[in-house]
Amino acid sequence: MKTTLRKNLIAAALVGALTLTTTFALAADSLPSWNDGKARQSIIAFVEKVTKSGSPDFVPPAERIATFDNDGTLWAEQPMYFQFFFALDRVKALAPQHPEWKTKEPFASLLKGDVKGALAGGDRALLELVMATHTGMTTEEFEQIVKDWIATAKHPKTGRLYTEMVYQPMLELLAYLRANGFKTYIVSGGGIEFMRPWTEKVYGIPPEQVVGSSVKTKFELRDGKPVLVRLPELNFYDDKDGKPVGIHQHIGRRPIAAFGNSDGDLQMLLWTTAGSGARFALLVRHTDAEREWAYDRTSSIGRLDKALDEAQAKGWTVVDMKNDWKIIHPVETR
Amino acid sequence: MKTTLRKNLIAAALVGALTLTTTFALAADSLPSWNDGKARQSIIAFVEKVTKSGSPDFVPPAERIATFDNDGTLWAEQPMYFQFFFALDRVKALAPQHPEWKTKEPFASLLKGDVKGALAGGDRALLELVMATHTGMTTEEFEQIVKDWIATAKHPKTGRLYTEMVYQPMLELLAYLRANGFKTYIVSGGGIEFMRPWTEKVYGIPPEQVVGSSVKTKFELRDGKPVLVRLPELNFYDDKDGKPVGIHQHIGRRPIAAFGNSDGDLQMLLWTTAGSGARFALLVRHTDAEREWAYDRTSSIGRLDKALDEAQAKGWTVVDMKNDWKIIHPVETR
Repeated sequence: MKTTLRKNLIAAALVGALTLTTTFALAADSLPSWNDGKARQSIIAFVEKVTKSGSPDFVPPAERIATFDNDGTLWAEQPMYFQFFFALDRVKALAPQHPEWKTKEPFASLLKGDVKGALAGGDRALLELVMATHTGMTTEEFEQIVKDWIATAKHPKTGRLYTEMVYQPMLELLAYLRANGFKTYIVSGGGIEFMRPWTEKVYGIPPEQVVGSSVKTKFELRDGKPVLVRLPELNFYDDKDGKPVGIHQHIGRRPIAAFGNSDGDLQMLLWTTAGSGARFALLVRHTDAEREWAYDRTSSIGRLDKALDEAQAKGWTVVDMKNDWKIIHPVETR
Repeated sequence: MKTTLRKNLIAAALVGALTLTTTFALAADSLPSWNDGKARQSIIAFVEKVTKSGSPDFVPPAERIATFDNDGTLWAEQPMYFQFFFALDRVKALAPQHPEWKTKEPFASLLKGDVKGALAGGDRALLELVMATHTGMTTEEFEQIVKDWIATAKHPKTGRLYTEMVYQPMLELLAYLRANGFKTYIVSGGGIEFMRPWTEKVYGIPPEQVVGSSVKTKFELRDGKPVLVRLPELNFYDDKDGKPVGIHQHIGRRPIAAFGNSDGDLQMLLWTTAGSGARFALLVRHTDAEREWAYDRTSSIGRLDKALDEAQAKGWTVVDMKNDWKIIHPVETR
């Protein structure tokens, strides 16, 4: 084959391959678990206009940053944030090494199975539980503890692995955005190191694209080997006002699309939509008591009240789980 | 053209294109400003073994994380860190709004041109200078201030733009690593928001791959518009022990290669090389008093003492700028 011909064929094939990819990514069947309603249509309309070359709303791939809340947006969060179940299991596992917990709150109540009593101490009790179970070890040790737990622990109501309680339509949305050149991030109030060990496998989101709450860590040489030790001191709380702060700190760019489900995500959505050019904000509303849970304005977990008013005032997309989603969890597709 | 034939041609062309890319990336001419010595050879040997499919040292692309110090590693740092010149210029620019600085140290000495006198106050004076010049505005305002300064300010000795004082061999190294599937990060003691506005253009490193020191920021609504305000409080100091902490916080993976030039990088290099599998550590040694500066064990800026001992003991690569680099700055290639 002559060199010029070969070069031309390579060029043609590359262009062909790219075109095929784009067409596939934009195809209507990228979101098969979404019913054809306003929510799905608004997502596709936004993605098409920011990716269309020559469109006044075109955004270069490097700036296609999309941020997702985790609890209640990518996976379920009832009757408690799943990280709280992790903390409970850790209290039980660590109890033999802490005889003093038998008489010390909030541990004593927890060990008797009285979660409500344990949480009567409010935020202080919760923080004490988190610090007792999430710190005092190296970062590598903590990673292994999380990996072991997430691989085996089951949800108390569904009996499923927690990673089976992710939302199939959101997995499709993540993949659809990435196929269109978006970089997808998690921005969660949950612990950054509680999520990183499994987000790549479950969501396709690598550790460096996870933003979350954190404790301070300290560099140490132990017998000449460098380790990072997790300290019982809060470093950053990535919720509400903290979300734009965490986004700025980690990403250093303003997202063009943000996805949440509760008042904890309001500031992230405000920050995202206040940028110039095309912007997109979406709230997942939990309306399906049968297939999942139904809750919003008065729930203590995942309260959606102020953010819902704001969404209605500003025309943000609100997903009605019951009517917009054909399937809730991936297990339903099997 | 028949469909099968077309498909085969596409496949062949794609494979061909990929092979060409790989061959090009691995070619000896990827590092043209490096003399063919031990340093250059050690870099190429490392990259070849971690990228070669089937090699016992193969590392999947997602884990090919390389971290670079900035001051003294990617650009010069004498006679002062360039960010300090930025702070000085800001003091002068802001002085009319601060009549009290005429009699208040460290500002009074600075405004008289007495830098040494201003710095007699040590770290406290330095911190005061940084806070007075780097905080009190929104993140967007600060970004614009940095952009304006970096586009025009000149180095007091060379008369060049600071971004012209980057190291050509290191630019080639960054590109060579990226062509081989590495993700390149900056991990600097300098301010994260002082670097992000120009690192993509100058180094090809996007904002989300810059780790650095930071001040706290606060989310606010100003006339209904969300802003992030820079507060006069240190959030994180990304030097020495802080570098592995910053790497863990931002990237959540241990690098497989790290590049520095001073004792401030020692912990990053220790942390990087303590991981399992193939690892690479490199120190740039400033040995060229004629084309740049020569300094190491006794310099107050960029001291290279303990890290040099460690490099010699552990067989890390040490670049001798005078002998290893044909060219120091990009301007020499014009």
